[in-house]
Amino acid sequence: MSKLAVFPGSFDPITIGHYSIINRALPLFDKIIIAIGYNREKAGFFPIEDRIALISKLFVDHAIIEVQSYTGLTVDFCKKVEARYLIRGLRTSADFEFERSVAQVNRKLLTDVETIFFLTEPQHSFISSSIVREIISHGGDPKEFLPPGLDISDLTSQKR
Amino acid sequence: MSKLAVFPGSFDPITIGHYSIINRALPLFDKIIIAIGYNREKAGFFPIEDRIALISKLFVDHAIIEVQSYTGLTVDFCKKVEARYLIRGLRTSADFEFERSVAQVNRKLLTDVETIFFLTEPQHSFISSSIVREIISHGGDPKEFLPPGLDISDLTSQKR
Amino acid sequence: MSKLAVFPGSFDPITIGHYSIINRALPLFDKIIIAIGYNREKAGFFPIEDRIALISKLFVDHAIIEVQSYTGLTVDFCKKVEARYLIRGLRTSADFEFERSVAQVNRKLLTDVETIFFLTEPQHSFISSSIVREIISHGGDPKEFLPPGLDISDLTSQKR
Amino acid sequence: MSKLAVFPGSFDPITIGHYSIINRALPLFDKIIIAIGYNREKAGFFPIEDRIALISKLFVDHAIIEVQSYTGLTVDFCKKVEARYLIRGLRTSADFEFERSVAQVNRKLLTDVETIFFLTEPQHSFISSSIVREIISHGGDPKEFLPPGLDISDLTSQKR
Amino acid sequence: MSKLAVFPGSFDPITIGHYSIINRALPLFDKIIIAIGYNREKAGFFPIEDRIALISKLFVDHAIIEVQSYTGLTVDFCKKVEARYLIRGLRTSADFEFERSVAQVNRKLLTDVETIFFLTEPQHSFISSSIVREIISHGGDPKEFLPPGLDISDLTSQKR
Amino acid sequence: MSKLAVFPGSFDPITIGHYSIINRALPLFDKIIIAIGYNREKAGFFPIEDRIALISKLFVDHAIIEVQSYTGLTVDFCKKVEARYLIRGLRTSADFEFERSVAQVNRKLLTDVETIFFLTEPQHSFISSSIVREIISHGGDPKEFLPPGLDISDLTSQKR
Repeated sequence: MSKLAVFPGSFDPITIGHYSIINRALPLFDKIIIAIGYNREKAGFFPIEDRIALISKLFVDHAIIEVQSYTGLTVDFCKKVEARYLIRGLRTSADFEFERSVAQVNRKLLTDVETIFFLTEPQHSFISSSIVREIISHGGDPKEFLPPGLDISDLTSQKR
Repeated sequence: MSKLAVFPGSFDPITIGHYSIINRALPLFDKIIIAIGYNREKAGFFPIEDRIALISKLFVDHAIIEVQSYTGLTVDFCKKVEARYLIRGLRTSADFEFERSVAQVNRKLLTDVETIFFLTEPQHSFISSSIVREIISHGGDPKEFLPPGLDISDLTSQKR
Repeated sequence: MSKLAVFPGSFDPITIGHYSIINRALPLFDKIIIAIGYNREKAGFFPIEDRIALISKLFVDHAIIEVQSYTGLTVDFCKKVEARYLIRGLRTSADFEFERSVAQVNRKLLTDVETIFFLTEPQHSFISSSIVREIISHGGDPKEFLPPGLDISDLTSQKR
Repeated sequence: MSKLAVFPGSFDPITIGHYSIINRALPLFDKIIIAIGYNREKAGFFPIEDRIALISKLFVDHAIIEVQSYTGLTVDFCKKVEARYLIRGLRTSADFEFERSVAQVNRKLLTDVETIFFLTEPQHSFISSSIVREIISHGGDPKEFLPPGLDISDLTSQKR
Repeated sequence: MSKLAVFPGSFDPITIGHYSIINRALPLFDKIIIAIGYNREKAGFFPIEDRIALISKLFVDHAIIEVQSYTGLTVDFCKKVEARYLIRGLRTSADFEFERSVAQVNRKLLTDVETIFFLTEPQHSFISSSIVREIISHGGDPKEFLPPGLDISDLTSQKR
Repeated sequence: MSKLAVFPGSFDPITIGHYSIINRALPLFDKIIIAIGYNREKAGFFPIEDRIALISKLFVDHAIIEVQSYTGLTVDFCKKVEARYLIRGLRTSADFEFERSVAQVNRKLLTDVETIFFLTEPQHSFISSSIVREIISHGGDPKEFLPPGLDISDLTSQKR
């Protein structure tokens, strides 16, 4: 049986923290689906198409990484793609308590799914998509918080 | 003097975690008022009438349990009904820090009121009304997170 | 059925924080046993007899308070005295996580016992028996951290 | 080089907790700018002019305190006024984790800025601007949570 | 390259929490070494030989599980066996903060090693080896906290 | 009035985390006393003389830094040297809760003393003296966790 993991998130946008976790998770799985959750009623900061394009481009050389978007419960997406593993990163105690609840709910809803946690690297522990959005909104440069080589002009259509 | 406790919350909807706490608090008090707080400007997920009906039905055999709704400060409701105790459940550290602040504010505003904390059972520690709402919104079945015997068709008018 | 609670601890010595919790718990129970746990192999700072004498004197006017010492598991003491409630105070998140584990273990070992938590008052949130012992060891005056009216000369035989 | 600190916040309104921190920070700096951040798109509870007037009046006798408003990134405000220090208060673990992230982002964006933390006094540890606003909204009296001498009639134009 | 993970711990004794984590980690790795750390100067509760025998017996039907003991730094053991993964379980925020530090130190000392975290199941979240030892010391029965089928007579030589 | 701060600790040994905090605190004070607390009955890992020598050498070019040892309560040392400020670093929530209690006790014992907190840098957040000692004990090289330029041969007499 192939080891398929889903890394769910809004990735609005992907940060250097997400990027590091994906790279470290790579050798452990046969395939990783980066699953961009969205909500039909609540637009994100970056359009969903741009988020997909950005991440696809970042991992273009990794055949085992696939990028998809989904709406609805994460466990329903896992069922659909037949994934048994969820990948999540942990930065702080607050993260941990939140992620623990989500993982336990997911496991209650879908016994077969196991969440695997990776630690955010210390130098990325304060980075989040929302901080990147706030820096962009105020005209700052978030380059250091983005995956290496990526810069703000790659994020083509900044909303708001 | 009779031991009257108020268990305040939005109960939108009541979960198996709330249910367990009420049952464990029962022997300690002469009367418990389950007080459903609402905000005139912010509609809940379930109509307030449905929430009252649901909880009333659950505890129909317990004469010492009463269900009321209230708006405004919780301590003002306590003053009105002359309750000296507030009941709250604790799941996580984040819960604890939040509940501690609320209890300390309440005690500052109304010296006479004491908050009594019960622990959520481990197997319910990840359950919350908001998770139940999210499962319902996405078409999932929250039965395991609701009081025993209750199912989603008892929640008659699902909004949104 | 009478409402009997056990407040277990080492009370080495009792602090103003313990004292406040006992006073606030009093109206809720028919009887409270302050149960001083000790370990035959590890002597405390104050002799167990002095700790019992001190607390007994403090609550001499409260007929419903009894002071006992015990060794072994707290749940075994509860079984022996037929107590259904344990009383514990909560100061910080670290306290909470520790107390939650202890309460959950106790409930697993003795289904019938329920731990009731009271909040330490904000101005006592940094006070502990170990801080009192450290102040005494270094020749300081811990009066502000002890129950009102109590002073260090009441603690007759300071060891170490 | 003069020691200039910025104490950023929304101060909507200033609480007794903020007031205590400012008074304790005073002897450490040559000048403190109380910097009221605002968001053009999201009105606060009290108008920005009232917040400025209120704080200015409170510290009218302290020549080294200045009150300003700002919009945008806090580090950009620090650059503009050439401040090397940020002042923040810490109440709880949740506060700490949030403030740690903000301080680390600020330091990444502006190497030269150092956040200095003061502890909220225990008896103020549950007080926040949002609790004051909630009490006012419900017709309660927040006097005990405000700087001494200040009362609600000083807050001239209560919105909402 | 084969996926080899080390699950380090003192396992004094192994609990149902450890047991659950090992079973959930099994499908993800090609081989798991359960590595029992010991300290020459500090005897454990159970002799190291008994701990090894007990765990070996538990997983006798899993060819990919091996049990070893080690002393010294965990990363040195990983280097010796050429493991790239460490497995650890997470129960509480306190656990998380401790494990995060250990994992970050390990990664600093041995760049190539990645710690993979699994969540303890909610119903095991309060179980630890030290609680099992305490129950045994006081003559209680820890059966519910041990791997299924295991009982206290399997722990042949209880010290102390 | 001169701004005198005490940075108390066991510094057994000083780490790169301590070193960074001292350097960042330097511009804020007129004088900083690095105060090495010791306990007559409990020997440290490194002799107190070596700890003093090591830190003195590190800051030989900073006339405003002085190194002293002390025993007894930290506030008594502050009184003796007439310091109004204590400096402490914060890494994690667990640190924060511990340091908050200590600072509040100190302030209760000596109204005039204020603890000023600096944040440990993210890349040092997992470093502690005890981890350095453990690495040394097991024959590892702790160089990356020590102040720059310092190496293990500078720590002349390793005990244990």
